[in-house]
Amino acid sequence: MTPESPAARKPGRLFFANPGPTNIPDSVLRAMDRPTTDFMSADFIEVYDRAVAGLKRLLFTTGEVFIYTSSGHGAWEATLQNLFSPGDRILMPEAGYFSRVWGAMARALGLEVEMPEADWRRGPDIGAIAERLAADTAHEIKAVCIVHNETSTGVAVPLPEIRAALDAAGHPALLLADTISSFGSIEFRMADWGIDAVVGGSQKGLMLPAGLAFTAVSEKALAAHAQARLTRFYFDWTRMMARRHRSFTGTVPIAPFYGLLESVRLIETEGIEAVWRRHHRLAEATRRAVSVWSGNQGVAFYCADPARRSDSVTAIRMPEGHDGEAVRRIAYDRFNVSLGAGLDPLGGKVFRIGHMGDLNEAMLLGTLGVVEMALRLARVPHARGGVDAAIEYLGAG
Amino acid sequence: MTPESPAARKPGRLFFANPGPTNIPDSVLRAMDRPTTDFMSADFIEVYDRAVAGLKRLLFTTGEVFIYTSSGHGAWEATLQNLFSPGDRILMPEAGYFSRVWGAMARALGLEVEMPEADWRRGPDIGAIAERLAADTAHEIKAVCIVHNETSTGVAVPLPEIRAALDAAGHPALLLADTISSFGSIEFRMADWGIDAVVGGSQKGLMLPAGLAFTAVSEKALAAHAQARLTRFYFDWTRMMARRHRSFTGTVPIAPFYGLLESVRLIETEGIEAVWRRHHRLAEATRRAVSVWSGNQGVAFYCADPARRSDSVTAIRMPEGHDGEAVRRIAYDRFNVSLGAGLDPLGGKVFRIGHMGDLNEAMLLGTLGVVEMALRLARVPHARGGVDAAIEYLGAG
Amino acid sequence: MTPESPAARKPGRLFFANPGPTNIPDSVLRAMDRPTTDFMSADFIEVYDRAVAGLKRLLFTTGEVFIYTSSGHGAWEATLQNLFSPGDRILMPEAGYFSRVWGAMARALGLEVEMPEADWRRGPDIGAIAERLAADTAHEIKAVCIVHNETSTGVAVPLPEIRAALDAAGHPALLLADTISSFGSIEFRMADWGIDAVVGGSQKGLMLPAGLAFTAVSEKALAAHAQARLTRFYFDWTRMMARRHRSFTGTVPIAPFYGLLESVRLIETEGIEAVWRRHHRLAEATRRAVSVWSGNQGVAFYCADPARRSDSVTAIRMPEGHDGEAVRRIAYDRFNVSLGAGLDPLGGKVFRIGHMGDLNEAMLLGTLGVVEMALRLARVPHARGGVDAAIEYLGAG
Amino acid sequence: MTPESPAARKPGRLFFANPGPTNIPDSVLRAMDRPTTDFMSADFIEVYDRAVAGLKRLLFTTGEVFIYTSSGHGAWEATLQNLFSPGDRILMPEAGYFSRVWGAMARALGLEVEMPEADWRRGPDIGAIAERLAADTAHEIKAVCIVHNETSTGVAVPLPEIRAALDAAGHPALLLADTISSFGSIEFRMADWGIDAVVGGSQKGLMLPAGLAFTAVSEKALAAHAQARLTRFYFDWTRMMARRHRSFTGTVPIAPFYGLLESVRLIETEGIEAVWRRHHRLAEATRRAVSVWSGNQGVAFYCADPARRSDSVTAIRMPEGHDGEAVRRIAYDRFNVSLGAGLDPLGGKVFRIGHMGDLNEAMLLGTLGVVEMALRLARVPHARGGVDAAIEYLGAG
Repeated sequence: MTPESPAARKPGRLFFANPGPTNIPDSVLRAMDRPTTDFMSADFIEVYDRAVAGLKRLLFTTGEVFIYTSSGHGAWEATLQNLFSPGDRILMPEAGYFSRVWGAMARALGLEVEMPEADWRRGPDIGAIAERLAADTAHEIKAVCIVHNETSTGVAVPLPEIRAALDAAGHPALLLADTISSFGSIEFRMADWGIDAVVGGSQKGLMLPAGLAFTAVSEKALAAHAQARLTRFYFDWTRMMARRHRSFTGTVPIAPFYGLLESVRLIETEGIEAVWRRHHRLAEATRRAVSVWSGNQGVAFYCADPARRSDSVTAIRMPEGHDGEAVRRIAYDRFNVSLGAGLDPLGGKVFRIGHMGDLNEAMLLGTLGVVEMALRLARVPHARGGVDAAIEYLGAG
Repeated sequence: MTPESPAARKPGRLFFANPGPTNIPDSVLRAMDRPTTDFMSADFIEVYDRAVAGLKRLLFTTGEVFIYTSSGHGAWEATLQNLFSPGDRILMPEAGYFSRVWGAMARALGLEVEMPEADWRRGPDIGAIAERLAADTAHEIKAVCIVHNETSTGVAVPLPEIRAALDAAGHPALLLADTISSFGSIEFRMADWGIDAVVGGSQKGLMLPAGLAFTAVSEKALAAHAQARLTRFYFDWTRMMARRHRSFTGTVPIAPFYGLLESVRLIETEGIEAVWRRHHRLAEATRRAVSVWSGNQGVAFYCADPARRSDSVTAIRMPEGHDGEAVRRIAYDRFNVSLGAGLDPLGGKVFRIGHMGDLNEAMLLGTLGVVEMALRLARVPHARGGVDAAIEYLGAG
Repeated sequence: MTPESPAARKPGRLFFANPGPTNIPDSVLRAMDRPTTDFMSADFIEVYDRAVAGLKRLLFTTGEVFIYTSSGHGAWEATLQNLFSPGDRILMPEAGYFSRVWGAMARALGLEVEMPEADWRRGPDIGAIAERLAADTAHEIKAVCIVHNETSTGVAVPLPEIRAALDAAGHPALLLADTISSFGSIEFRMADWGIDAVVGGSQKGLMLPAGLAFTAVSEKALAAHAQARLTRFYFDWTRMMARRHRSFTGTVPIAPFYGLLESVRLIETEGIEAVWRRHHRLAEATRRAVSVWSGNQGVAFYCADPARRSDSVTAIRMPEGHDGEAVRRIAYDRFNVSLGAGLDPLGGKVFRIGHMGDLNEAMLLGTLGVVEMALRLARVPHARGGVDAAIEYLGAG
Repeated sequence: MTPESPAARKPGRLFFANPGPTNIPDSVLRAMDRPTTDFMSADFIEVYDRAVAGLKRLLFTTGEVFIYTSSGHGAWEATLQNLFSPGDRILMPEAGYFSRVWGAMARALGLEVEMPEADWRRGPDIGAIAERLAADTAHEIKAVCIVHNETSTGVAVPLPEIRAALDAAGHPALLLADTISSFGSIEFRMADWGIDAVVGGSQKGLMLPAGLAFTAVSEKALAAHAQARLTRFYFDWTRMMARRHRSFTGTVPIAPFYGLLESVRLIETEGIEAVWRRHHRLAEATRRAVSVWSGNQGVAFYCADPARRSDSVTAIRMPEGHDGEAVRRIAYDRFNVSLGAGLDPLGGKVFRIGHMGDLNEAMLLGTLGVVEMALRLARVPHARGGVDAAIEYLGAG
C-alpha cells in the first residue's frame, strides 16, 4: 500500500487551474519543507518578523495584521467576532456564493445582516449601497462588507467606489473587504483605499498552501475592536497582541513563514505591480479565448459586465442543456488539468478557470488548449480558435 | 538577503527536544512537499479517507472525528462550542498551564467552570473529583474535562480512573480529554476508556507540523451536540457533517493528509503498542539521568508523584536561585539543542525535555549529553553521570 | 547573496522542452531528496536490487546491466573499453552530432573506426551497412555501433533492420546501440532485437537527473569482454561483477536508486507500451504543428524522412537567413520555455523541441504555443495555426 | 509495494557515522531538490560559476578545477590519465586500503608504480620518501602520490612534510594528494602547500551526495598535462577546457551545483577555519572516549601514532577474538546508527566512526553513546565511561 494509489498516475504535471488554492512555486514548497524549530527561538522570530513585514508591504498597510491557523472562513469569523457586538447591523451585499456564506456566518454569530441581493452576474450595485448609506442617517450600519473578487462568479468590484460611497454619505461604518482571491493578483491598496479590515488567506495570490489566514486592520478598526463584545477566544485579537508574535492562539506554525518569506521575495523580485499586470495580461488572454468560444451560441462569460471581469478567475457559463461537470471531468481525467466547478446554485451551470498566482503564458496556453479539447469532447457548443486568439494576443510584439 | 539569516548557522542538526511540536520524520516532510491538488478530486479523497481511517485506528475509536485547520486551542474551542450551551457547568480540574487556559477559554465562551485547584506537581486529585461527582446528584455538571498529559508539568493522569469515578457516581456527565501531548506517545484507548470527546493535534505524537487539530467524539457526545447552543460557525460540527470530508469549514488543506497517511504508516509499521513502549523506555532513560543529576541538592523532577511522570515530557525543576532559561540558552546557542521553557508561573523555574514522536536512543543520548553539559556550564548544582545512567539502562541486554 | 540570483525570477514553471535532460516528476525528486544511507546496508540493497530489476524489465533484458556514476559519454567509454582491444575495427555510421562524437571517442581510445557518412537529415543508410557487412567476409568488423535516436537531428533508426542486416550477412559482429534519447520513450526491446550492448542514461526517458549511465549487455558481449584488452579501471566490468552491486567503482550513490525505483513504478503503472504510445501521440501532435508552420516557405522538419521522425525530439530547420537561437532566446527569456539548440554544425540552423519523459497534452500545448509566439516575435517565416492543428489532433474523440 | 520496505522502519533519525559519504544538511538537500534546467542557460551558468569559485576558495587555489560526474575513483583515474604517459614512474606509498587501490589503478593504466609498504597503523614513512627522492637524481619519478587522510585507517599525513622532502631533494616530481576524506574537514591549503593535483569528491567534507569528483591542478600540473599521452576521452582535461564549464564531458548535472553553492555558503558562514577547529574538537572528544574504552585490554586506536590520528575518522581496533561487524550490526539494527566497517584486510578487525561534515556535539554524543552500548551488548572488552569523558571534554567551560 503506497501513500498514493497507482490509480493516481497520470503522466506529466497536473495543471492546477482551479481558482484557489493555487500553484505553489517549487522554491516556496522547498522553503517550507523543513524540520521543526522552536517558534520562540530568535532564529525563527527573525524569519517571522521579516515575513510579516513583507506581507504588510504587499497589503500596502503599516497597521496590525492578525494571522490565524485557519482557512479564510476562520479569518472572516475572527474579523466579525473582534469588531462587533451582538445585534450589530452590517451591510453585506450578496453577489455570489462566498458573500452569501459570510452573511450566513454573521447571522449565526448574532449580527443583524442586511444582504441586498445583487445580480450574481454583475456583482453588488454600488449605487444602491450609496443610497442605503445616505439613508442611514442614524448610522445604525456598523460596517459595509464587500468581497473584492467573487471567486464563485469571476466578478471583481471596484473597492474605491465603495469607499467613495461611504465618504459621500459621511458614514462612519467600517469598510471590510474580502481579498481572498484578489490579494497578490489584482491591485489592492489597503491604506490608500481606506479599508478598515482586510480578510485574506495564504492559498491564492500568496502562492502558499492553505492553512493560514489573516485580517489586516486600520486604527479605526482597532478602536472598534476595543468595544466589540461578541464571544471569542481562539480568534481574539487582544490576546494575540499580548504575544510576541502579535498573532495566533496556541502553537505558531513555522513552515508557512519560511514559505511566506520566499513568496514575498518572489513577488517583490518581480514587483507587485508587475504581478498585477501579468495577471491582467493572462486574464485578458483567457478572455480572448472565451470570446471566440462564445460564438455559435456556445459557452459564454458568466460575468455580464465586461468592466468587472476578474483578473484572477473566469467563470464560463454553459449553454442550456450542457453540464460544466462533463467538461471538468474530461479535463481532469483525460488531460490532468484541474478546473473549478460551479459552486452551489451554479453547480453544473458554470466551470471556472483560475489564472492566479504562479502562472505564465505556457501554463495558461496549455490550460486553454485542454479546455478547448474538453469542450469539443463533451460536445459543448463553441466556436473553435480560442487558443489561437490567446496566442495572437500574448504573442503580439 | 536570504530566507535564512547567516546568523542562523549552527553546524549539524538541531535536536528538537522541546515538548511539542516535535520531530517530523523526513518521509513525512517529503510526503507533504507536493503541489496543489483539488481537495474534491477523487485522488485526494482516497488519500484523505485512508488517512482519517488510520487516525481513527490510532485513537481506538470508530466514531466521528472532526478535523480543523487550527491549533490545539482551536480544537478545544470547537469542542466546547459544539457540546455546550451558555451557562452550562463543567468540571475542569486545574493542574497546569494548559488546564488553566482551557478553563479561561470555557469562561470566555460563557460556561460555568468549576476549577478545583490541584497541586501542579501531582496533578488532579481523583478522589476529590469522585466526591464532587457523587455530591452532584442533580447532575448539574455537564462534563468533566481532563488534560491527559500536562505538557507544562510532565504529569500524566490515569484516565480510566476518571471514568471509574464517573461510573461509580452513576454520573451522566461527558468525559472530555485533552490528549494533545499524549496521543501517539502514551497509551490511549478512546472507546475502551469511555471518553466522549478527545482533543488532539497534529504536531506531537502524530509527528506532523502544527496546523491541524481535531476532536473525536462518542455517540453520546454527538447527541449532546444536537442540543448545544453556543454560538459557532467556523468550528460547527453539523455543517462539517454535511460536507464530503465530514470535517473543516472552507478550504481543506491537502498536504497534511499525505503527511498523516505516512505518519500512520510509520506508526503502524512499528506498531502503536511498540510506539508506546518505546516512549516509555526513552522516558525511563531520561528519568534515570534526572535521578542522578538530582543528587547534590541539584535539579529535581518537577512531578512529585513517580507514578505520574509522563512518558512524553519531563519537567526538571531548578534549584533555588538558578534559572532554567540559562540552561536552555546554553543548550540552544552553543549546542543546537532546543529544550522546553517553563510556562507562565513556571517560567525560569523549570526546563523541560520533550521525548516524544520520532525519537530513538541516539537522539535522546545526544540531548541528555547536552543537558548535562549545559547544567555544568550554567553552574547549576547537579551530580555528574546522568548520561551514563541512561546508557546503563538503554544498553542493558 | 542567495543561492538563486534575483535575476532568475520568471513567473510560473519553466517548461523544459529541451531534448534531455528531461522533466523529472515531483515524486521522483522527492524520493531522491533523502539523507545519506550506507550503500552496503540491507535496507539500501533491497531498494537497489528492486530498482535494477525494474531497469532490466524496461530494457527487456535479463542480462547484466553495469551502472556508472557518469554521463552517457562515460557509458560509451565504458562500453568500448570493456568490449574491445587496441586496433579493433568497428563500424559506426556517422549521422549526427552524437554518432560523430562516439567515433572520435573510439579513435581516441585506440580503435579503428569506419564511419561511413550519412545524410544527417535521413540517418544511416542501412542498405550500405548491409553491403559493407556482406563484403566483410573476414569478419574484421568487431561491432556495428548505432545511435537509435539521434538527439541532435530528431532521426530515429529502425534497429531491427540493422539486426537483420547482420543476420543476412551471417556476420558475428556485436551490435551496439545508443538508446540515450530513446529508452523509456520509444519502443526498444533488447533481447528480441538482438542487441549486444545498450548504452543508456538516467536523464531522459527514465526521468531522473543526470548522473547515472549504464550498459546492458548480452551473453555474447560478456564473452567478448573477457578478451578485451583496452586499458580501463574506473569503468571495468570485471571489477564491478566482483562487487555486491555488480556495478560502480567506488562509492555507490544512493539517491538515484530511490528515484529509479519510483520512476520504474510510474512507468509500469502507466505501462511501458502505453508510455511509448503517449510519446508517439505527443510527437505526432508536434509534427502536426510543424507541418502547419512549414507553410509559407517557413520553418521545416530537419528530418527529411517522415518514417524516421523521432517520437522523443523534433528538430526544426530554420529558413535561410534566420537564426534558431533568436527563437530559443525569446522562448526562454520572455516565456520561460527551454528549447534545444542546434549542436555544433547545426548551431543556429535548427532548434529542437524535446517531447520526452514526463509529458502530457497541456505541457506540450503550452510549449507549442510559445514556439508559435516566438516564431512570430522573431519574425521567422511560418504559417499560423500550428497549435490549432495540434489541438485538432489531440482533441479528436 | 512501497519504495521503502516496511522492514526498513526504525524510529528516529539514522545517525550516519560511517566515514563517508556523510551527513548532508537539509538545506543542501532542499537546494538540490529542483526541476531540470538547461545547463547552458545563463541562470544556471551564474550558479555554476559562483559554486565553482567557492570550491576554489575552500581549496585555497586559484587554478583550474576539473569536475567530473564520477566517484572519487574516477577522479583518480582522470588525474593519472591527464598527467602521465605509459611507463611513467610514480611513487605512491601504500598505507591503507585506498592507497593500495590507487596503486593498482595506476598499474592498470600502464604506469610504473613504486609502492613502498608502510605500517598501516602509522602511515607513510616520510623519511624514507625523502631518501628515495634524494636518491632519484635522474628524476625518473614523475610524481609523489599521497593520501592525505586514509579513510580506512584513520591516519592523517602531514602534507607539508612531503612538500619539504621534495624541496629538500630539489626534485621536480609533481605532488598529488588525495583529499577525499580530509577536504572540508581537516586543514588543507593547496597553493601554500605546493600541491600540484588535488583529488576530491562531493560526498564528504563538502556535505553533498556522492556523484561529483574533481581534480584541482597547479600550473605545473597543467604543463605536465600537455605532455601526457595516456589514453583518455571521458576524463580528458583538454576537451573540458574547451567547454564553457571548463569541466565535464557530456551532460552537466545541475542539482549538485545548487547544493554546492549552499554547502559553500554554510562552510563560509561558519568559516573554513572554524570548521577545521570543530572537526578537531569533535575528533578529540571521540578520542577521549576511545581512550577510556581502551582500558581493560579492550578496544584500541588503530592508529598507533597519536600525532597522526585523523580529525575526520577514527578506526577502532577490536581485541583479539572479537568481530567489529558484531558491534556495527548491533549499532545499526538495534540503534539506527551506521558505523564504518573494516575494509578488505581490516574486515572485522576494526570498525570506524566517521566524525566529518555536518556534525555537532549532540550528534557525536548520541553516536558515542550507542557505540558504548553496542560494545557492551556485543560483549567486547572495554572500560565504561567513554561518553562521560567526551562530555567532560566538550562541556569544559
